[in-house]
Amino acid sequence: MVYGIPHTQYEFASRTVSSCRRFHWIPSLQRPPHGPRTNVETYEGKHSANMASEVQKRTFGSAATHIQRNPAYSELNSDDVSYFKSILGDNGVVQDEDRIAVANVDWMGKYRGASQLLLLPKNTTEVSKILSYCNTRRLAVVPQGGNTGLVGGSVPVYDEVIVSLAGMDKIISFDNVNGILTSEAGCVLENLSTFVENEGFIMPLDLGAKGSCQIGGNISTNAGGLRFIRYGSLHGNVLGLEVVLADGTILDMLTTLRKDNTGYDLKHLFIGSEGSLGVVTKISVLTPAKLPATNVAFLSCNDYTSCQKLLLAARRNLGEILSAFEFMDHHCIDLAMRHLEGVQNPLPASQYKFYVLIETTGSDESYDKTKLEAFLLRSMEDGLVSDGVIAQDISQASNFWRIREGISEASVKVGAVYKYDLSIPVEKLYDIVEEMRCRLGDNAEVLGYGHLGDGNLHLNILSSKYDDSTLAQIEPFVYEWTSSQRGSISAEHGLGLMKAEKIHYSKSPEAVQLMASIKKLLDPNSILNPYKVLPQSVL
Amino acid sequence: MVYGIPHTQYEFASRTVSSCRRFHWIPSLQRPPHGPRTNVETYEGKHSANMASEVQKRTFGSAATHIQRNPAYSELNSDDVSYFKSILGDNGVVQDEDRIAVANVDWMGKYRGASQLLLLPKNTTEVSKILSYCNTRRLAVVPQGGNTGLVGGSVPVYDEVIVSLAGMDKIISFDNVNGILTSEAGCVLENLSTFVENEGFIMPLDLGAKGSCQIGGNISTNAGGLRFIRYGSLHGNVLGLEVVLADGTILDMLTTLRKDNTGYDLKHLFIGSEGSLGVVTKISVLTPAKLPATNVAFLSCNDYTSCQKLLLAARRNLGEILSAFEFMDHHCIDLAMRHLEGVQNPLPASQYKFYVLIETTGSDESYDKTKLEAFLLRSMEDGLVSDGVIAQDISQASNFWRIREGISEASVKVGAVYKYDLSIPVEKLYDIVEEMRCRLGDNAEVLGYGHLGDGNLHLNILSSKYDDSTLAQIEPFVYEWTSSQRGSISAEHGLGLMKAEKIHYSKSPEAVQLMASIKKLLDPNSILNPYKVLPQSVL
Repeated sequence: MVYGIPHTQYEFASRTVSSCRRFHWIPSLQRPPHGPRTNVETYEGKHSANMASEVQKRTFGSAATHIQRNPAYSELNSDDVSYFKSILGDNGVVQDEDRIAVANVDWMGKYRGASQLLLLPKNTTEVSKILSYCNTRRLAVVPQGGNTGLVGGSVPVYDEVIVSLAGMDKIISFDNVNGILTSEAGCVLENLSTFVENEGFIMPLDLGAKGSCQIGGNISTNAGGLRFIRYGSLHGNVLGLEVVLADGTILDMLTTLRKDNTGYDLKHLFIGSEGSLGVVTKISVLTPAKLPATNVAFLSCNDYTSCQKLLLAARRNLGEILSAFEFMDHHCIDLAMRHLEGVQNPLPASQYKFYVLIETTGSDESYDKTKLEAFLLRSMEDGLVSDGVIAQDISQASNFWRIREGISEASVKVGAVYKYDLSIPVEKLYDIVEEMRCRLGDNAEVLGYGHLGDGNLHLNILSSKYDDSTLAQIEPFVYEWTSSQRGSISAEHGLGLMKAEKIHYSKSPEAVQLMASIKKLLDPNSILNPYKVLPQSVL
Repeated sequence: MVYGIPHTQYEFASRTVSSCRRFHWIPSLQRPPHGPRTNVETYEGKHSANMASEVQKRTFGSAATHIQRNPAYSELNSDDVSYFKSILGDNGVVQDEDRIAVANVDWMGKYRGASQLLLLPKNTTEVSKILSYCNTRRLAVVPQGGNTGLVGGSVPVYDEVIVSLAGMDKIISFDNVNGILTSEAGCVLENLSTFVENEGFIMPLDLGAKGSCQIGGNISTNAGGLRFIRYGSLHGNVLGLEVVLADGTILDMLTTLRKDNTGYDLKHLFIGSEGSLGVVTKISVLTPAKLPATNVAFLSCNDYTSCQKLLLAARRNLGEILSAFEFMDHHCIDLAMRHLEGVQNPLPASQYKFYVLIETTGSDESYDKTKLEAFLLRSMEDGLVSDGVIAQDISQASNFWRIREGISEASVKVGAVYKYDLSIPVEKLYDIVEEMRCRLGDNAEVLGYGHLGDGNLHLNILSSKYDDSTLAQIEPFVYEWTSSQRGSISAEHGLGLMKAEKIHYSKSPEAVQLMASIKKLLDPNSILNPYKVLPQSVL
């Protein structure tokens, strides 16, 4: 029986679960190794050049007015360039305007610096010599990986020297018994992913930006991504690091051990510190075994409480095979259906208030499918799920994921979008969406979606155009509300330049002060990635 | 058919897999929630009082000769006691000799201090007042949890004031959607375990010492334990901490969020720093959903290479349900059979060189058993496994685990035992056992066993008595060899007093120097847990 979607390859088998509820089954599938997902933020960047310039005026522009170039930094001169050429050769010292222009701006076109020099070291010793020199000369430095960040952390603010890790892209070793990968920091995530998949493993993180982002940047920003609910954070998966400190000291912490309780575990200082404490040059990461079977279900729920209960039941009943639990409110689905080409709602109509995408990944396709089906039937009988379908092949799974991931792309087609990436305790997570809807009334459309399994809400507020009165209704309320719930104003994107001055909403004064003390200890001249992560007032 | 073991409740079903190999099946079981396992080290402590005093002469004794009481510390006077009584009341200030004597010595009787005062704060404010006062007065402090450590980290060395967290044992909250527990640091692990299990979750760590150890101590020592292979380290599972710094500053990092990228993730500094950077007062931890089905198999392999290949195959084929992969050489089994009462080898005789214990934990008992059986059959056909059995109930599983966990207990019955807890890359892990056997010849019996899945070797060297010539053949060779493999001289026990001076075997001089700088930054008067973790020469 073909149901609902006029999409030729779709074959749904309808099945009556109870007298009043339907369930539509599509058999399980193998997910493509480099699945169809893309970072939800990617679309925004690609499709919203106009919006980006608006945002620039509002965020970066205003940030720049508050942050002056630190006069303690020297200005680059020809002797500096000569020195860098002496250690890197001519090819390692880039002064070509076009190439520098690319490195001066983030990929969204939202943040733009004025660096005059891009350096391309090929090994750790060269990075060490660069930093040692810059530290002595008080030349500010911005370390740059794939430059795919979303908060302006990877581009210069003024005339910082750009140190790109792109030339350090060698895989050093792979332990195929334990799945431990050691590589240089400039390796592109997708290349590492392909390499370990050929060995029967997967990277513990997967991002839409994987074709450009580098593993050193991923670690420096503590990237979250699509495998977080299953494999957890990089603090759990990174085994070792080699880092060059501001004064050129090479800090060798590049173990490949799962267990090592000898002294303070210093590597964690560099995971998520956005290049402001040191430059990551080599990494070792634990990679999970690659499992062959993936199933994706697209479900509807009548209320947010049901979504929460479904999450609890999924953790308990799907336990070891649960690999994604994403939720969207019906505003998101309506928007996606209006603005995304070729995307269809697999469920009959927009009669439901909430939608949930569940993915499982395991080692036995037919068993996992049976298990997921049994779980969904039970969830319907318990009233947690109103309706739902399971994908039967890659293209159907891709369609389900495309709805979830296309929300951001669809959002920017409306006009202006105010975007927030928040961590909030799950039971309170949807409250901010409803409160924001009350505050804004007819002035804006408020969407709530995100990684429910991780407590990570994407709050998008759509309006016909940017205006100060709308912004004033949103901020600082959204930050204050998040702070009052002990949430995080940056779940996975970091602070960078965009939110450095807003850290107090998520961290106590004592914690910020200690961060500043550690920054001063490791980088007393503050040459590494200045103006970012921490407020200028504490440095 | 009953095979092999004259144990009345055992029922084995023999099954021919190939013409020359046998496989014995015992159906699956539910593991008891507080299973029969005990920390392998526990036995040693309980059964080797004589040995402990020997070790004291050799390790603590010699350490004490190298470490003098730091004269910068004040000596306790009656004004100090009066002050502490004013903030804690009489019940919070213990001067009773018997009670202090207990707190002055570790549970193995190996390390003994000379403190005259035990303080029992009941809340964070009291901890803060204590440390603030001690910092001003230069009174050295040892924070104490359950005092179950193995390296002398939790008892005084000289006259440090003991600050026990035992009075701070309240559960603060539990989020039963996400499984996030928040509690005070003095909660006993087993109590937390019982609490979350009643809610359908488990603690991400399980230790033999769980009946005494406290969660704050677990976190301060980055305890490994029995669930490590499945749920990873505490760096991945601890979500938030509240810590009191040496000067009394209360550092609130007690979030309950899975994702939070706002600034440096400071909590990791306190995980595994053994109370030398601050006193953990509250914790929040992610607890995994409790899964109902456990299976345990006991297998034999002809060589170490087969053990490694079996591990690789288990990771791939058992993937999401694998919860333990332990190995033992035949010397261990022989010893266990000779010295452990009521324990039987489930396999025919000591004809195999290596033994492996595999445990699975999942959500479906019959499916998991079928899967494990299929995996083991395939492994036999591939020649990785020579013989094996699967337990059919709790008592059989307990017997399998008892063999593995009884090795340490059996070891100390021989006479003297030199014990090392090493992390070594899996492919090299057994080399040190064989090299040690060559070095020692007939002078000693060398056993190799441990958590193969974590790359964690327990190397036990048995001799009729302790003597300097044997020790000289072992040390520093074992540390130098481990260092040459980039291994860790303390996989899960920490450095404490025992190995503080040996940190250079596992950490680079630059890393040790940075640790010392961080210690000086956070505890400039060095009042917290002196003489431990870091060498005196760098402080």
